[in-house]
Amino acid sequence: MPDLLVDDDWIKAARRVAEDLKIDSVERDRANEAPFGEARKLRDAGLLNLLIPTERGGGGARWRTAYQVIREIAIADGSIGQLIGYHYLLSWNPRFFGSAEAQERLERQSAAGNWLWGGAFNPRDDDPTLTPRGDHFILNGRKSFTTGARVGDRIVVGALRPDTDEHVALIVDPAQKGVNRPDDWDNIGQRLSASGSTEFINVVVSPDDVLGSYDNLSPFASLVTPTIQLVFVQFYLGIAEGALATAREYTVSRSRPWLLSGVDSATRDPYVLGTYGELVTATKAARALADQAINAIDPALHDRREALTGEERGEIATLIAAAKVAATRTALDVTSRVFEVTGARSTASKYGLDRFWRNVRTHTLHDPVAYKLREVGDHFLTGAHPPYTLYT
Amino acid sequence: MPDLLVDDDWIKAARRVAEDLKIDSVERDRANEAPFGEARKLRDAGLLNLLIPTERGGGGARWRTAYQVIREIAIADGSIGQLIGYHYLLSWNPRFFGSAEAQERLERQSAAGNWLWGGAFNPRDDDPTLTPRGDHFILNGRKSFTTGARVGDRIVVGALRPDTDEHVALIVDPAQKGVNRPDDWDNIGQRLSASGSTEFINVVVSPDDVLGSYDNLSPFASLVTPTIQLVFVQFYLGIAEGALATAREYTVSRSRPWLLSGVDSATRDPYVLGTYGELVTATKAARALADQAINAIDPALHDRREALTGEERGEIATLIAAAKVAATRTALDVTSRVFEVTGARSTASKYGLDRFWRNVRTHTLHDPVAYKLREVGDHFLTGAHPPYTLYT
Amino acid sequence: MPDLLVDDDWIKAARRVAEDLKIDSVERDRANEAPFGEARKLRDAGLLNLLIPTERGGGGARWRTAYQVIREIAIADGSIGQLIGYHYLLSWNPRFFGSAEAQERLERQSAAGNWLWGGAFNPRDDDPTLTPRGDHFILNGRKSFTTGARVGDRIVVGALRPDTDEHVALIVDPAQKGVNRPDDWDNIGQRLSASGSTEFINVVVSPDDVLGSYDNLSPFASLVTPTIQLVFVQFYLGIAEGALATAREYTVSRSRPWLLSGVDSATRDPYVLGTYGELVTATKAARALADQAINAIDPALHDRREALTGEERGEIATLIAAAKVAATRTALDVTSRVFEVTGARSTASKYGLDRFWRNVRTHTLHDPVAYKLREVGDHFLTGAHPPYTLYT
Amino acid sequence: MPDLLVDDDWIKAARRVAEDLKIDSVERDRANEAPFGEARKLRDAGLLNLLIPTERGGGGARWRTAYQVIREIAIADGSIGQLIGYHYLLSWNPRFFGSAEAQERLERQSAAGNWLWGGAFNPRDDDPTLTPRGDHFILNGRKSFTTGARVGDRIVVGALRPDTDEHVALIVDPAQKGVNRPDDWDNIGQRLSASGSTEFINVVVSPDDVLGSYDNLSPFASLVTPTIQLVFVQFYLGIAEGALATAREYTVSRSRPWLLSGVDSATRDPYVLGTYGELVTATKAARALADQAINAIDPALHDRREALTGEERGEIATLIAAAKVAATRTALDVTSRVFEVTGARSTASKYGLDRFWRNVRTHTLHDPVAYKLREVGDHFLTGAHPPYTLYT
Repeated sequence: MPDLLVDDDWIKAARRVAEDLKIDSVERDRANEAPFGEARKLRDAGLLNLLIPTERGGGGARWRTAYQVIREIAIADGSIGQLIGYHYLLSWNPRFFGSAEAQERLERQSAAGNWLWGGAFNPRDDDPTLTPRGDHFILNGRKSFTTGARVGDRIVVGALRPDTDEHVALIVDPAQKGVNRPDDWDNIGQRLSASGSTEFINVVVSPDDVLGSYDNLSPFASLVTPTIQLVFVQFYLGIAEGALATAREYTVSRSRPWLLSGVDSATRDPYVLGTYGELVTATKAARALADQAINAIDPALHDRREALTGEERGEIATLIAAAKVAATRTALDVTSRVFEVTGARSTASKYGLDRFWRNVRTHTLHDPVAYKLREVGDHFLTGAHPPYTLYT
Repeated sequence: MPDLLVDDDWIKAARRVAEDLKIDSVERDRANEAPFGEARKLRDAGLLNLLIPTERGGGGARWRTAYQVIREIAIADGSIGQLIGYHYLLSWNPRFFGSAEAQERLERQSAAGNWLWGGAFNPRDDDPTLTPRGDHFILNGRKSFTTGARVGDRIVVGALRPDTDEHVALIVDPAQKGVNRPDDWDNIGQRLSASGSTEFINVVVSPDDVLGSYDNLSPFASLVTPTIQLVFVQFYLGIAEGALATAREYTVSRSRPWLLSGVDSATRDPYVLGTYGELVTATKAARALADQAINAIDPALHDRREALTGEERGEIATLIAAAKVAATRTALDVTSRVFEVTGARSTASKYGLDRFWRNVRTHTLHDPVAYKLREVGDHFLTGAHPPYTLYT
Repeated sequence: MPDLLVDDDWIKAARRVAEDLKIDSVERDRANEAPFGEARKLRDAGLLNLLIPTERGGGGARWRTAYQVIREIAIADGSIGQLIGYHYLLSWNPRFFGSAEAQERLERQSAAGNWLWGGAFNPRDDDPTLTPRGDHFILNGRKSFTTGARVGDRIVVGALRPDTDEHVALIVDPAQKGVNRPDDWDNIGQRLSASGSTEFINVVVSPDDVLGSYDNLSPFASLVTPTIQLVFVQFYLGIAEGALATAREYTVSRSRPWLLSGVDSATRDPYVLGTYGELVTATKAARALADQAINAIDPALHDRREALTGEERGEIATLIAAAKVAATRTALDVTSRVFEVTGARSTASKYGLDRFWRNVRTHTLHDPVAYKLREVGDHFLTGAHPPYTLYT
Repeated sequence: MPDLLVDDDWIKAARRVAEDLKIDSVERDRANEAPFGEARKLRDAGLLNLLIPTERGGGGARWRTAYQVIREIAIADGSIGQLIGYHYLLSWNPRFFGSAEAQERLERQSAAGNWLWGGAFNPRDDDPTLTPRGDHFILNGRKSFTTGARVGDRIVVGALRPDTDEHVALIVDPAQKGVNRPDDWDNIGQRLSASGSTEFINVVVSPDDVLGSYDNLSPFASLVTPTIQLVFVQFYLGIAEGALATAREYTVSRSRPWLLSGVDSATRDPYVLGTYGELVTATKAARALADQAINAIDPALHDRREALTGEERGEIATLIAAAKVAATRTALDVTSRVFEVTGARSTASKYGLDRFWRNVRTHTLHDPVAYKLREVGDHFLTGAHPPYTLYT
């Protein structure tokens, strides 16, 4: 019994893209340009359509495969792992918030157009307003941290309807007038994730493109949060695995045995072996927990759907919260400590070995891990489930 | 897809025994008597025959169920988790070292007699000698750490044949003349695991009871070591889970909110919740890794058998090494830190809350975790597999 | 410049007592009898009078020497380190709460009688009541965790005066009628610290023996809390150092090199050396911080006295809070991990190597370390000082 | 009694430079230019001459003040902390390796010229050769990691004399023909420490500039290694303190309370306070140990000098090894975790908050901390002292 039942062809396709991305990952990290080329590679490999049913023109794969694809891509490039992970979640937003009709229509369009989806949802910013005007709506406002928006074909936006006081999810074509996507993402990590800001100035929105409210959701629809939180887990783990693989290559080919070690190769140094053992063990454990979380949420997303109970949703959310803590801690530790097994010369900028830590450090601040620990503890101690929010 | 496919009836049976053992676990720990009564409970519940094929009169379950039974028992009593875990491994010794005939004969006898198996194998002691005399053998020597021997119906012994210089595994009926099982197990933890010494003075051994050599083993037979190492993992995790469950009961029913906390219940203290979150997360991750290890070794033991390659054996052994490190670290941390969420009064001897740490601390010294880390690191870095020994 | 200026003669005297206590520390821990004999050893060595001015018949030493004496005693026996530490604090209670006259009178009596002081102060219990009746008072109530009371010559009690609603500190001669000191201390650690309960039934208290209120204290008098918190630090560190010294003796004389280590002595195993390095480094760092805390509080207690400002008190309290966190963490880690460098056989009950962890684990729950971290963090972030309480 | 007796005027001078360096530390880190301007600031503040006796025109301060100055500078700029730290060590090389005459001559010249000293000593590179030719020597070779050389007035070089097979320290004026200092330092951290390579092509060296051999050193002279190791400790701690101070400023002025925290300011979030508590406590403990190490080595350098025994040298070296481990671990942890108390937006490149981790991560690989732990462990377990090498 494999730990995770995935569709191997997709994994192979993801690995081919990963191999390609790996080649110049250091240079691209430094250049900090919007990832148009990277998005094209994902598109060309067919990975963008993976989750869309075959009868609608997509790849027909399940979330468990999508999650694994995210990890494979992130091994080579954490930013692009984030980009495709957000894409999967955002392109599923019609399933969480939209009507059956909208789902079908948008998935067919997405498959046909090979769309990359970006998002403008950050709940920590003021919400853009969606105001009815005649037979359409007008969108005004600004969001930061809009992953994928800069290079996306469609953007999912979270907005407030002043007339009904509802929060609604809607879809915007960035080619439209009034959508500004400044090239303003310059952070220490996940530099190629296109996570800058997006501004909407009097953007016309058709009622068809308004999916629905995300204020009071069914247990199924409220999976939107655990689903994306597990996306995070997957690219954190991918980054950690990428760091380990890169370090191994370095240790084997470049590291010299330590002067006082009494061994003739760094690969025989007892402390080097012990440190690799620590980092690999932690990564394996975090990954095993993530795999269990994937096995828990995958049938909820594909099979249980609207039959999902609040209790089931709570159990899944708590398991994912635990997986997120484990992945966060492990990825931070691994990406900082790999240097101990590569050595002083591996700090040369040309190797870019710090990008793994910078990537993990940046995104793991999405929401405080302390509050995830609190959720896990509260659930264990009192049985409580976290309320649905865009963070829990 | 469940994380682990196990036979629920056995798990329920194990939980009934666990419930029973839990009642007086503190008192029995203190009394430190040989676990005859506990062995009887396992026997009465039918758990001893679990692994024996139905056609030989046993329960017909697989190792993955046995592993889960060990964990369930250990939640209530770590010592008895060890006792039954060693029993499973030792009663499988004919499969590792014996002929098909011996396997069938011994399993039928074991099922019929409802045997509990103990072992006298510790490789760190001098080996007893098995000397041919006429049509039988004579066994002489002494072993320490002979888990289960004191209360077992049969003892598997590792001995040296001076005539051939082979190490052989053989079976001894402790009722025989010359088998001394002094009541000398008095350690700080796993006090009910019957792990004292056994002495053999001119014990007559029939050739039928000599299973075979364990010097040069097939990949399958050499699974004897990873199989028992994963037994350890299961009772370490069970002990950690037992500590957490016991702490929760205490926090909920007895702990008072801290003076300076500003909350009216310990169950709402942010730090109490955070600490539970930490301990539960670590336990979940270690358990997920153990589950993956079970999923890896179970088919090797039951299905691959002699077709198993050295490469496959090495991958399994390394995965179990990692699982052991994770379980060891986690169980030590959890059992020491639970006090932080129960508080000062929980240190009263009557609660015996220290037994969890004492249990884990004692058995996790079986072999140094540093060398397991080395194995894991070496495998990752160079692809090396640990050589077969009784520790690797 | 030594890290700590102490009076070497007292240290030598303490070490002589420690050597003596070490001989049967395992047996005494197991026997769990009230420490009358141990108290006598402290008395005979003159250590009880150490802090009393020479002109009043005492040893004339300063707190920095007292602190070091506590550590030396705790290296051999954590319980007795606690006993003498509480004694020093309690016998200084007249200085914190009493009049100049009371101080002089009580210190002269204490020196002459070679008194051991115990305490009944636990603020988590309901307070005994001190009710005026004619020209004296009547004391009624019960306290738990009354360290030293069982074997003390005088007991300092915290009580509530119902007539004035004040909390007052008073002194009781346990030989008096109505003072019950049941032999009810049976906890997992610090078993010889005489920390059971004390009951007061209509005990007559002379006004002379009422020191004063501890509700609203001057900065100097409110040092009572940091002073005892630093007492804790010293015996935690002593216990950690005792564990390390005991482990070293074991490793050097008994531990065998590990089978797969390739070295011929456990003292040359790279992982054994590394682990000792970790534990020793952590202990040295925690001790260095404690030494700085001693250097900070010593002049406040002896020289600044009533000139001490609230600001100065806050700085000292925060530094001691940090020292306590460091000592707690380190002592827990060291006492649990020493087993990794001694090995499986060191878990035999006869070695009692678990007593160090049991001792630290028990007392470090006095008040939650999480709230000490909060104090340290709050001070760093906002400059806030902890309010005076019996825990801060 | 202060923890460290230092000359306050120098500390104030250092703090003024630090204030100045802090202003554009992020920009300078990014620009990665050779620190000529920074060197001038140190020179103008008089800090370069601090250790030179007043009678030779210097500041007349002791190493304990120099160490504290390094820390103060590193709080603002880790690279410049390294630059001045290496300068102090290198400008003391005549004291370790040279004659009394050379010491006096060079110190007078250094004071008069306000020299900054750089070094080309890395023992992991092949040694340049110093070949006698007529009445002088010819130096040929290349060293990497030559901190300060690029901007220094003099460079101390470690070279091999092929004729005598001795390793000798010598001084080179970089203005001389044949000294190439390419601007090739581009590493992920300590970017302004001028630690690139230096090449010597047929450089003429006068016998006066050859200090002497460093192969077989007196205990005093062999302090060269612990002295520089403690320099490292000081700038690691400075960087950690700089990270904490910067984070505090950010939390107080910019961090928003977390959505689910129930508090109205990030400065009242229990987990933010707890995390600051953790980081501050660890830093205080590491610093306390460093202070003790400074107190140990300072009199050895200034007072004991050639009277120093091997035993004393060993104790000092071991204490510094422990201090280095504590500082390394703490600085890595603090600089990575400060982000948890500043939050997602603090990852914007413009804040450069990652520079602290990059700085610590880079230099702490100078020599493996695992081997320092081994030294500390070996000393505790067996009493052994590390042999003198350029790493121990």
